[in-house]
Amino acid sequence: MNAVLRTTLAQINPVVGDLSGNAARIITLAKQYAEETDIIVFPELVLCGYPPEDLVLKPFFLERCETALDSIVKASADIDVALIVSAPEADGKFIYNTAFFIAGGKVLHKSRKKHLPNYGVFDEKRIFNEGDLPKTFSYKDVNIGIMTCEDMWFADVTKSFENQGAQLIISLNASPYEVDKHDIRSHHALQRAQESGCPLVYLNQIGGQDEVVFDGASFVIQASGQVICKLKAFEEDFETISWYQDNNNGYLVTETYRIEDDLSTEESMYSACVLGLRDYVFKNGFKGGLIGLSGGVDSALAAAIAVDALDALNVRCVMMPTEYTSQMSLDDAADCAKRLGVVYEDINITPAFDAFKTMIPDLHGVAHENIQSRSRGVTLMALSNMHGYMVISTGNKSEMAVGYATLYGDMCGGFNPLKDLYKTEVYALTKWRNAHKPAIGLGPEGEVIPERIITRPPSAELRPDQTDQDSLPDYGALDDILRCLVERDMSIEAIERRGHDKALIQKVWRLLDIAEYKRRQACPGVKITSRAFGRDRRYPITNKFFNTVAE
Amino acid sequence: MNAVLRTTLAQINPVVGDLSGNAARIITLAKQYAEETDIIVFPELVLCGYPPEDLVLKPFFLERCETALDSIVKASADIDVALIVSAPEADGKFIYNTAFFIAGGKVLHKSRKKHLPNYGVFDEKRIFNEGDLPKTFSYKDVNIGIMTCEDMWFADVTKSFENQGAQLIISLNASPYEVDKHDIRSHHALQRAQESGCPLVYLNQIGGQDEVVFDGASFVIQASGQVICKLKAFEEDFETISWYQDNNNGYLVTETYRIEDDLSTEESMYSACVLGLRDYVFKNGFKGGLIGLSGGVDSALAAAIAVDALDALNVRCVMMPTEYTSQMSLDDAADCAKRLGVVYEDINITPAFDAFKTMIPDLHGVAHENIQSRSRGVTLMALSNMHGYMVISTGNKSEMAVGYATLYGDMCGGFNPLKDLYKTEVYALTKWRNAHKPAIGLGPEGEVIPERIITRPPSAELRPDQTDQDSLPDYGALDDILRCLVERDMSIEAIERRGHDKALIQKVWRLLDIAEYKRRQACPGVKITSRAFGRDRRYPITNKFFNTVAE
Repeated sequence: MNAVLRTTLAQINPVVGDLSGNAARIITLAKQYAEETDIIVFPELVLCGYPPEDLVLKPFFLERCETALDSIVKASADIDVALIVSAPEADGKFIYNTAFFIAGGKVLHKSRKKHLPNYGVFDEKRIFNEGDLPKTFSYKDVNIGIMTCEDMWFADVTKSFENQGAQLIISLNASPYEVDKHDIRSHHALQRAQESGCPLVYLNQIGGQDEVVFDGASFVIQASGQVICKLKAFEEDFETISWYQDNNNGYLVTETYRIEDDLSTEESMYSACVLGLRDYVFKNGFKGGLIGLSGGVDSALAAAIAVDALDALNVRCVMMPTEYTSQMSLDDAADCAKRLGVVYEDINITPAFDAFKTMIPDLHGVAHENIQSRSRGVTLMALSNMHGYMVISTGNKSEMAVGYATLYGDMCGGFNPLKDLYKTEVYALTKWRNAHKPAIGLGPEGEVIPERIITRPPSAELRPDQTDQDSLPDYGALDDILRCLVERDMSIEAIERRGHDKALIQKVWRLLDIAEYKRRQACPGVKITSRAFGRDRRYPITNKFFNTVAE
Repeated sequence: MNAVLRTTLAQINPVVGDLSGNAARIITLAKQYAEETDIIVFPELVLCGYPPEDLVLKPFFLERCETALDSIVKASADIDVALIVSAPEADGKFIYNTAFFIAGGKVLHKSRKKHLPNYGVFDEKRIFNEGDLPKTFSYKDVNIGIMTCEDMWFADVTKSFENQGAQLIISLNASPYEVDKHDIRSHHALQRAQESGCPLVYLNQIGGQDEVVFDGASFVIQASGQVICKLKAFEEDFETISWYQDNNNGYLVTETYRIEDDLSTEESMYSACVLGLRDYVFKNGFKGGLIGLSGGVDSALAAAIAVDALDALNVRCVMMPTEYTSQMSLDDAADCAKRLGVVYEDINITPAFDAFKTMIPDLHGVAHENIQSRSRGVTLMALSNMHGYMVISTGNKSEMAVGYATLYGDMCGGFNPLKDLYKTEVYALTKWRNAHKPAIGLGPEGEVIPERIITRPPSAELRPDQTDQDSLPDYGALDDILRCLVERDMSIEAIERRGHDKALIQKVWRLLDIAEYKRRQACPGVKITSRAFGRDRRYPITNKFFNTVAE
């Protein structure tokens, strides 16, 4: 039996703004796959990368998008394959998020995105106009409907395709990772396939872009609802699917292809941190990453992630002790660096600490503690300036939430892979990494983080015998309250019903509010949860709602 | 002749999130004005402050808004005046931006905002649903149409009011200041009045909220298009307008009230910086502001703004010299502090600088320069921690644009009043302040900034004989190119036609792009131009569009 159509899923990693580079990659892949396929499917806005944000508002950018698209259209005249390339499209004063079907030197069809997400990390109503319901079109005698990302979340686009007699639905996506997001996508895809009786190709990109990571895991569903192909998560991946006509009912069907195993929750979270950091560092042209190791679990996990992301050769670690630093911390930090195979050095910050004490009389309390953290920050930034390595920030979500971090001190850095991991998750991922090496990791196998770093009580070591629990509630309780407040928007009464003390909930709420100004100056990090700090959660700094909450 | 209706414009300064406080203020004003008026008009979202951002997505917040609104409705039973109070309104799973007409213990009418701005600093499609065209309603035999902010920017709402026989249009606003914004508002208001033949009451709030300042300047237009009342800019202000029936045509008319003079462009820009800083500092509970004076024009202007905003008693200035600091800088900084009447101290940062040099071998170049800036940052933050004064950051827009600022160094601070002023504007406002005291200023009259600070060549004084123009083009050219790139989204070709060199434009473009990561960690500042850095301009950090630009 001959295939009536062959579609190739090109799960690639475009770079935002790199129109020439992305176009060149598309043309290279077109040549490479021309013999084995009829249509290559690329992810949403592959030409300019996702999300392009306000670049789209620049007419000059739109002109250059058109030029880059034209270069692909021209190249397609000499390559025997069709391409689905998504790009911003200017039409008079309107701008659309459009999938172009390109073949034989021409644009044969256009499909504009209808549902523009404008929640969470998304701002599409800011930069795009809503398209009408897209039309299907026929290629090689197959009636195809192309939709973009959010259009699969609603029934109307698929319904319209069905009414137009679609035989195959192709969905282009730039769908950011979050825990359990894959299940949501599968659920919607399955619903659409079942409603329409059409097989569905779901193609997502991979790669890190500032605050979000795209995890790929593209898949293909038969009209029956059966998943017959699933690509890797967090890696570029390709597969060509051959479609056959079912003589009984006229449906397009195919056989079963490779179905990659789902990653465990821990591996997917860890891999998101790895890919987010890797792409931020290398897409921005840094040589590598620089981390201040403290002997604590956060910086140790960040170092492991950095080694998995950047390779040990491109990671430098620095221990910056004072008189309050325990021997245990010194030993554990050195041990961890050795296990990870990174360059490690030791810079005692006492001279700077002492100098500030002579300069500023009466230093005490928080000011005294912060001087230490900030002297470390200055030291790291100097090393970064000298070596071209980006400082990796290591504050976890629990700390970022309640402001247990020093602005311009341990908050220094270009990117924070732990920013959306609660402290309890930092522990869980540390244990996981000691037992597993992630598929995309470049670091060593085995117990890379010394056990004692995990078991000792956490401490900032900014004064004698300090532990985190002097200032903060138990992390188990804290993280549960924070999830309720940050991700679930729950009321105090509802959180109390989970067994937490009202006074504690109010205290955490207040800490969360007053740390907003610190978070506004924090570096970006990878979104992992359903609501990360950053563009995903937009709160006023000046905000007296707490006064009402405390009544 | 008896007035058929009296309307009071209450141009007040609500606080975001302070539901109880804002409600209490509304009730107090209701009691105060009950005898002299029929309706008190309050600004858009007066109950929760504007913009409430993602607070609105919290069901608990919406419940408390309802509670606070109920408290006003109940109070109104005993006060003989009607109130127009705008608040978020939850209706099932929809959330509206709604004006409530309250009188005699009841909500007599509701008017939901139709046009939701989702550009620039606005995210209203993220948090609100679009209302239907609002209905007019009759109060004291006058047919009134109430619209909210953006609804005045379009013709449809007014057209609908006209069709319903409206006799008076009331427009509630939270319209952020930008240069020339007042003219745009007047233009739209005039158009609406003329289209409908209705008089129009335009009520705006005043006050600073993080990145925006509301400038008030509320006004009233007759059906003829004549402005018959205009309130103060940047100050709370009130006026009661009596409306009469014109027996010839049935129109509502009134006499001429107080018409405040327009502020000069310089005074309005300066006042926006003052009010933005004042409200940020005091609404967030700081005791005052702390500024590192360098002897240069930026920190001198910031100090003058701080004194005008906070009173000299609440401003501390610190000079932090090194061996590269000239005697001229020391003298000028001390002189400026004396003229402004602030507490002034001198902390030599050489001990810290020397300490870092011993800790980090081979310090040189940018790393060596940044250490100085960062030692100053650490010193300022320690003083801030000790005294409860917020550090005021003093980088101008030209510097923020091209990254001529040290992250965690001179970029330290909670708020930056100069953030949206180009360097050429910093000079212009400095000269203006030496000749004028702004109406809302708390500082002294006269030449508060020594002439030499304005006339000497600008220098960061991080190495011997350094001037800004070693690294940057002339500020006149730089600022013009930046305006073209940042605010006008112009192409390189179009900017060349203004007489700039292509290589220079490309250089500035590149500097602008690679400083994005610094700006992401900058503190907020007041929006002055049509596009400020911050929520007003959302750019990817990871962005290779420059590669295409440089082709």
